[in-house]
Amino acid sequence: MALGLGSGECGSGVLQLVNSFTGLPQVTGRYLSQSQGREALDGGAASIFLEKDPRGPSLEELAPEAFAALKEHAALMRARLREEMQIEFTIENGNLHILDGVRVERSARAALRIVVRLAEDGIITKQEAVMRIEPRALSELLHRQVAATAKRDVLGAGIAASPGAATGKIVFSSEAAQAGAARGEPCVLVRRETSPEDIRGMHVACAVLTERGGMTSHAAVIGRGLGLPCVVGAASLRFHVKRKQLVATDGRVLREGDEITVDGTNGQVLAGSVQMIEATLDETFRTFMSWADAERDIGVRANADTPADAKTALHFRAQGIGLCRTEHMFFEAERLTPMREMIFAQNPQDRQAALELVLPMQRADFLELFRIMQGHPVCIRLFDPPLHEFLPTSRAGQRELAEALDIPVSDVTRRIDSLAEYNPMLGMRGVRLGISVPEIYDMQARAIFEATVEAANEGITIVPEIMVPLVSAKREVELVRGRVEAVASAVRTENSADFTYRLGVMVETPRACLRAGDIAEHTHFLSFGTNDLTQMTYGLSRDDAGRFMSEYVRQGVFNEDPFHILDTEGVGELLRLGVVRGRAARPNVVLSICGEHAAHTESIAFCRAAGFDYVSCSPFRVPVARLAAAQLALADKIG
Amino acid sequence: MALGLGSGECGSGVLQLVNSFTGLPQVTGRYLSQSQGREALDGGAASIFLEKDPRGPSLEELAPEAFAALKEHAALMRARLREEMQIEFTIENGNLHILDGVRVERSARAALRIVVRLAEDGIITKQEAVMRIEPRALSELLHRQVAATAKRDVLGAGIAASPGAATGKIVFSSEAAQAGAARGEPCVLVRRETSPEDIRGMHVACAVLTERGGMTSHAAVIGRGLGLPCVVGAASLRFHVKRKQLVATDGRVLREGDEITVDGTNGQVLAGSVQMIEATLDETFRTFMSWADAERDIGVRANADTPADAKTALHFRAQGIGLCRTEHMFFEAERLTPMREMIFAQNPQDRQAALELVLPMQRADFLELFRIMQGHPVCIRLFDPPLHEFLPTSRAGQRELAEALDIPVSDVTRRIDSLAEYNPMLGMRGVRLGISVPEIYDMQARAIFEATVEAANEGITIVPEIMVPLVSAKREVELVRGRVEAVASAVRTENSADFTYRLGVMVETPRACLRAGDIAEHTHFLSFGTNDLTQMTYGLSRDDAGRFMSEYVRQGVFNEDPFHILDTEGVGELLRLGVVRGRAARPNVVLSICGEHAAHTESIAFCRAAGFDYVSCSPFRVPVARLAAAQLALADKIG
Repeated sequence: MALGLGSGECGSGVLQLVNSFTGLPQVTGRYLSQSQGREALDGGAASIFLEKDPRGPSLEELAPEAFAALKEHAALMRARLREEMQIEFTIENGNLHILDGVRVERSARAALRIVVRLAEDGIITKQEAVMRIEPRALSELLHRQVAATAKRDVLGAGIAASPGAATGKIVFSSEAAQAGAARGEPCVLVRRETSPEDIRGMHVACAVLTERGGMTSHAAVIGRGLGLPCVVGAASLRFHVKRKQLVATDGRVLREGDEITVDGTNGQVLAGSVQMIEATLDETFRTFMSWADAERDIGVRANADTPADAKTALHFRAQGIGLCRTEHMFFEAERLTPMREMIFAQNPQDRQAALELVLPMQRADFLELFRIMQGHPVCIRLFDPPLHEFLPTSRAGQRELAEALDIPVSDVTRRIDSLAEYNPMLGMRGVRLGISVPEIYDMQARAIFEATVEAANEGITIVPEIMVPLVSAKREVELVRGRVEAVASAVRTENSADFTYRLGVMVETPRACLRAGDIAEHTHFLSFGTNDLTQMTYGLSRDDAGRFMSEYVRQGVFNEDPFHILDTEGVGELLRLGVVRGRAARPNVVLSICGEHAAHTESIAFCRAAGFDYVSCSPFRVPVARLAAAQLALADKIG
Repeated sequence: MALGLGSGECGSGVLQLVNSFTGLPQVTGRYLSQSQGREALDGGAASIFLEKDPRGPSLEELAPEAFAALKEHAALMRARLREEMQIEFTIENGNLHILDGVRVERSARAALRIVVRLAEDGIITKQEAVMRIEPRALSELLHRQVAATAKRDVLGAGIAASPGAATGKIVFSSEAAQAGAARGEPCVLVRRETSPEDIRGMHVACAVLTERGGMTSHAAVIGRGLGLPCVVGAASLRFHVKRKQLVATDGRVLREGDEITVDGTNGQVLAGSVQMIEATLDETFRTFMSWADAERDIGVRANADTPADAKTALHFRAQGIGLCRTEHMFFEAERLTPMREMIFAQNPQDRQAALELVLPMQRADFLELFRIMQGHPVCIRLFDPPLHEFLPTSRAGQRELAEALDIPVSDVTRRIDSLAEYNPMLGMRGVRLGISVPEIYDMQARAIFEATVEAANEGITIVPEIMVPLVSAKREVELVRGRVEAVASAVRTENSADFTYRLGVMVETPRACLRAGDIAEHTHFLSFGTNDLTQMTYGLSRDDAGRFMSEYVRQGVFNEDPFHILDTEGVGELLRLGVVRGRAARPNVVLSICGEHAAHTESIAFCRAAGFDYVSCSPFRVPVARLAAAQLALADKIG
């Protein structure tokens, strides 16, 4: 046993060849003369430098031969153990003794650089590099994070619903967020819960904090889609939205304009600003992902509703848009008015006239998406939400609307009453609306096709994919297909242009899975919407499940929240039935999944096994999905 | 060719041996001297009597031999053609010539008596008699009906949602219906739509009329259950419930207290009272049904929630109660208060204390049902609705509740807010509530078991069946079973009594069908609730589907309203999967169906083919189901 005590240069220390935080090559460690074991690591100990350093004595100067041997040993260990190692050593009278080696601790970004360098140095294969990174760990790289060393003044905590962190001033409404954004101030949108009406506020906020909801609440889903740090279900804080106060767990009262930090990675809400580390999508990241993509055997697209989403999707190398929800496009003020006129129209002609005002805006939306996506496929879901979402809920809003439309307020309230639903999730929306008010889909199909023609004129060839939501019977698809085909013919004739498109179905009711054979006869693709499918298979609204989900998971009633982790036993069986029947009826039907589950390794494994063509997830989850898919393919190869 | 013209007694006429309306034996018809063909049937023609009659001349007197031959011929024709026939004949110079014979037209009640007499006379077999009556036609016999000859002053029309007719004074609220009932006045409850809060009004009303809803709306389902004439979706009338006015299609204004007749058989709303014919459940009916039961090979139970329902069920020979919903038991005033206290309780002890006030009432409910059912099985569904249904919706009601509970109104509104749900159908109800607030099921299990012990002391042996609603995972059943078993043990010990019971599951989520194998491991029976199952399989709320269902059926999107006729292709497949898997896991598991579909021939055919043990339907539909099942068994036998 070598002791680090005695005559000549004696001591002990640790050394590694890489920086634990950055992953860059750097001799780093500690050495303490006349010490034993890991004493050098004791923070209080007066360790000396390893390499020559102008600031003080170093091991390199005190025992140059031992130091050279140490570095050589470290390099050898790296090569032999195929890993960056921290070496524990003792110097006894100038002679080196290696005591131990442990795997170097590392940040997520260091981990990535380490495996890439190991592969580039020929120590491990690229495949092995790909296998060594946990897909979830990539999230850390894609977002700004609170620095590990930052001091945290915790106000309260909730569910970490969308990773990353941001600091901003508290605002209690979407309007205030927009006003703040107009002044250039980062704002944290604080709401009891968010609804589609908050979308514009969320688009400009730097983070979102809600009192209610779980991993699949509106705020969480939209937050992840936007890559916006988000903490939901923060019931340990008290939300007095009307009074514009947020009360911390310890009783501190925060007001609109006060600065807080939302840490969506661990669910904490912090007072003021804290030290952050930036996202890193550097050359190493791109190299690593290209290795992953070389192995991957299932497509990865992104769910992207806006130009910003589409840019993010492309930035993260999504192979197209798998789900473009169009309803947000109708919530902007200049479109909301014609939408409302359409809702109050007395006949198809008036409905069509109102929608014609929306047409050029929709066309521009799609054209912009097509331009951004540079010919990558774009799958557009036709209008889905119930119409009552477009009507004001407040008395003041209803009075305004009555004035704008020049009708009595009682007409407005009567229409709102008549559109009210007991269970909106199971109501008059999706294709049901498309069939009952066919002018909406006609307008959307026209906008898509006209944008396709315009894109072609600009040299961008696009084959748009049109997806029909909430189908439960074949005939629904037949009816929509008939009208879409008629619109396509009209647009072709009017523009003396030709184009192709694909029509498909969002499979999100249990019945659509069971009848996928019938349905596939009329469709180019089937995209399984696992969010709604999970809701209907369990008979469980994700918006209402938050109240008991944690208790259910705690008592083991559900192993996992099925809105978070795909329920392969129940929902999964319906997916399998849908796939088998769809493929039997139309062997080349394109199959995909576009729910919140899509980026999880378990779901991707399921989709690969079931023969899906691609998965589609939030733009910020695309790298995670690409890596998870690559690892699954590699695991299969290795066996 | 014989002419009814010439010398001697000449003429023509028709004769039958049975009364077309009553079905009783009676020589009836018309004869006109010096006439041809069917001239005697012309209302204006001065026909003479067939049999001797003090009021005038008769064929029997004019041509006694011919008349005797005619009657003989008629009897022969009945025997040979095995049917009651109307004979068309000519007399030529006193000689009889038979021209033709057609099947006697008949009312529903006559039809029944005719086939029973044909069988009793040995002309047809009992099986043939059973096959000859359309099950739906029985409905006519089970309810009072508007007489075919009555003059109808039609105010408007809607969907014929529950057969039978009744005349009463218009009331616009349940309270007014109860007040009217207290005065002994028959009342027609007129509502835009009904909700659980209207149950007490419906129990005392003689008929129900609603503006909204379809065949499976609340009013329709409850109406059929109660055997109450009901017209729903009567949008051709205008309902001004607040102003207490009902405006007819032609503009006539009716007010509270005005008399109307609701014809639930054809969907009309008539002014004033009209001539009715009474229900007939006579010896013939009982004989006929006993023949049907002899052939039937699937059980028929009734859905019965109240003592009145149970009596009706037994009266119609239901083989037990297949579904006893318990929630109505909590809406009565004396129970509503402890229920609300339970909802506002801060801890399990307070919840239990509040529920202990309900316990003796629940026990009495069950004991009364057990007494009525005389040992026939009673399947009790545990508490199912969301708690918010028990809280007042009006500001006044909320203020009252706050006063009663001695808490601030803001506490009441906060609790109501916190219980509000986006999609109550998919929310915190059924077993989810049972697991989250286990004191409710504990209390119900205790009430059931204590009632079982008391019934045994009275000499009634009952094996109660306890059904867990809205299950989607096996573990839910395990948890409930554990607690129910504990309660059973406690009741056995406390009473030094022994009893058995059965625990089962209401299979009404798609996932429960898919996982029926797991679930059956813990259950004695699986009862498929096709109402909810249809809603979830289609992703379609029956309460919200009314808005487009007729359009959907018209356009052939759905062949039939799936809430009315079981969707064998989608929902049916889930049922089949559930049956196969349930039986595989537990071969002796009892299988049944208890949705609105249960009384339809198509559904019963499906259930027989799938190996169900019984179907359970509204009490008034029990005879229909018994006959339909018998016919299916016979059809199989005949091949």
